Amino acid sequence: MITIGIDVGGTNVVSGLFNDEGRLIRSRKVPTETSQGSAGLLGQLAELCKTLLTEEGLPEGALSAVGIGLPGFIDFKTGEVDAANLPLVRTPVAQKLSELIGVPVTVRNDVKMIVYGESLRGVGKGFDHVLGLTLGTGLASAWVSERKLHDGAAGLAGEIGHIAFSDIPYVCGCGMKGCLETVVSATGIARQARDGLAAGWVGLLAERFPPERRESLTARDVWQAAVDGDGFAIETFRRTAGWLARALAPAIALLSPDIIIVGGGVASSGELFLQPLHAVLSSSLHPLYAERLRIVTPALGDEAGLYGSSEFAREHLSLAKEASA
Amino acid sequence: MITIGIDVGGTNVVSGLFNDEGRLIRSRKVPTETSQGSAGLLGQLAELCKTLLTEEGLPEGALSAVGIGLPGFIDFKTGEVDAANLPLVRTPVAQKLSELIGVPVTVRNDVKMIVYGESLRGVGKGFDHVLGLTLGTGLASAWVSERKLHDGAAGLAGEIGHIAFSDIPYVCGCGMKGCLETVVSATGIARQARDGLAAGWVGLLAERFPPERRESLTARDVWQAAVDGDGFAIETFRRTAGWLARALAPAIALLSPDIIIVGGGVASSGELFLQPLHAVLSSSLHPLYAERLRIVTPALGDEAGLYGSSEFAREHLSLAKEASA
Repeated sequence: MITIGIDVGGTNVVSGLFNDEGRLIRSRKVPTETSQGSAGLLGQLAELCKTLLTEEGLPEGALSAVGIGLPGFIDFKTGEVDAANLPLVRTPVAQKLSELIGVPVTVRNDVKMIVYGESLRGVGKGFDHVLGLTLGTGLASAWVSERKLHDGAAGLAGEIGHIAFSDIPYVCGCGMKGCLETVVSATGIARQARDGLAAGWVGLLAERFPPERRESLTARDVWQAAVDGDGFAIETFRRTAGWLARALAPAIALLSPDIIIVGGGVASSGELFLQPLHAVLSSSLHPLYAERLRIVTPALGDEAGLYGSSEFAREHLSLAKEASA
Repeated sequence: MITIGIDVGGTNVVSGLFNDEGRLIRSRKVPTETSQGSAGLLGQLAELCKTLLTEEGLPEGALSAVGIGLPGFIDFKTGEVDAANLPLVRTPVAQKLSELIGVPVTVRNDVKMIVYGESLRGVGKGFDHVLGLTLGTGLASAWVSERKLHDGAAGLAGEIGHIAFSDIPYVCGCGMKGCLETVVSATGIARQARDGLAAGWVGLLAERFPPERRESLTARDVWQAAVDGDGFAIETFRRTAGWLARALAPAIALLSPDIIIVGGGVASSGELFLQPLHAVLSSSLHPLYAERLRIVTPALGDEAGLYGSSEFAREHLSLAKEASA
């Protein structure tokens, strides 16, 4: 079965061709076509599929299915997609692209496809129950159990970034106060650091970012200051890990994952974040869970979404064939 | 397919015979045989199966499978069961009973079987994704998605009673400090009430339970005082609901259940507990989840465990047949 996985981002579209064995044999990265509305973007995706096949010397008929991951909200009843950073407004992406290229198309949120890829082909390979998170601009999660991505009622599973804690003071982009992702995310870490400096914290980070430069401060700068020994920066990672642990502990006790994958920009902070996360979780979980606790960073890099969406399209096609058999 | 479901408790064993359509057609309740070690209990279970069949005029060969729910810990590698209130110490219950009665036997924790029964045949019927809790002596949970009970890595899924919160002051029977079930359970509600009275709270509950009678106070007394308008009793239910909400909110955002079943002794407190639980959860969840939030009490009463273990045995047998086909 030849499949294509596509990771559609606001800046670039990354696409990959997978051979019969599910190996990535060819990939292309192009700037996302956003100037011509949804038709322009869909046309670009169809072209990409054709180009990948042609370049590999394969006829169009060789393709079995396409999987897409994108940063958007999918209405599971209608299949319509809304995406703030893409020209998609109630666009039935799967249906439209399927009409253009003549094969089944699956569409899921990009974070779910990244976690699915890591679960089946990356760091989660060989584990039955995988809980995955990405901490980037926001915080999202996905749950994969026995190769099955969990969509939940109305396809709403995964948005752990939008639970409110009473001790988180920030208003979220979603309109709620205290959403976890206002602190547990790359933007959240930068925000906490800026506010801490404004409140008078001193040290390396304060020296590097005087008030006039403070707006440019990123999570990466907090990380660098922490690596260089800045106590406030280290504490910012610790506090952030503590908040995340409060959300993860119940999920771990409820689901007993084999492994927890923490990806996204913050994951590159490595042990500065993961070590306190592991420590707080261990102390708040029963030893039966704490002993088994395995928190890891992703293995597939930028290709995780391609693997995930390709595998997801394959899995869907197999299920559809079983059901009709 | 004729099956038997058995709910083994420390006091009674309830067993039920289910016909081809999965309807409960006959049940028996007998005191649990605990005086003759594991062999005595297993012999009792085998006898119960035979009696149910005989009473219904069915030959032994008519039975296809037996499912058991019991209050114990099951080692998923070996199938061995440990149960504090039953004469089971590393006893391979499924294997032993299967040898005695000649059909496949499944064994799971009793809470899981109760939730499974409610999911498939009780208040959760017709819903794909069901999160179930029981608040009794302790607090436990189970997750059923698309008819599948989730066991998790090492079969450890479900013990949300044993996550620790820093603002819970009690030491748990498990040895940890701050376990959720030290407050969110029938025993936990009674404990909070006793401690509150000792600390000087006044009102109806204080009048009804002067210091010399305080040890006998139960969750049911707190409920009665709350019904009668006692502010402290009402507040005790509210605070308890708040703690539980903190554990449930991340699980809801992660999994998006269609419905949440709250059972066990505390469930009989009804709206006194469920109303504040709903309110706190609604305020801490994104509107997409809050609008869909459905918290209900069980429908099957004492028979939930029978339905659950019978259905579970059926499901297992079907899967085994599929796999060997």
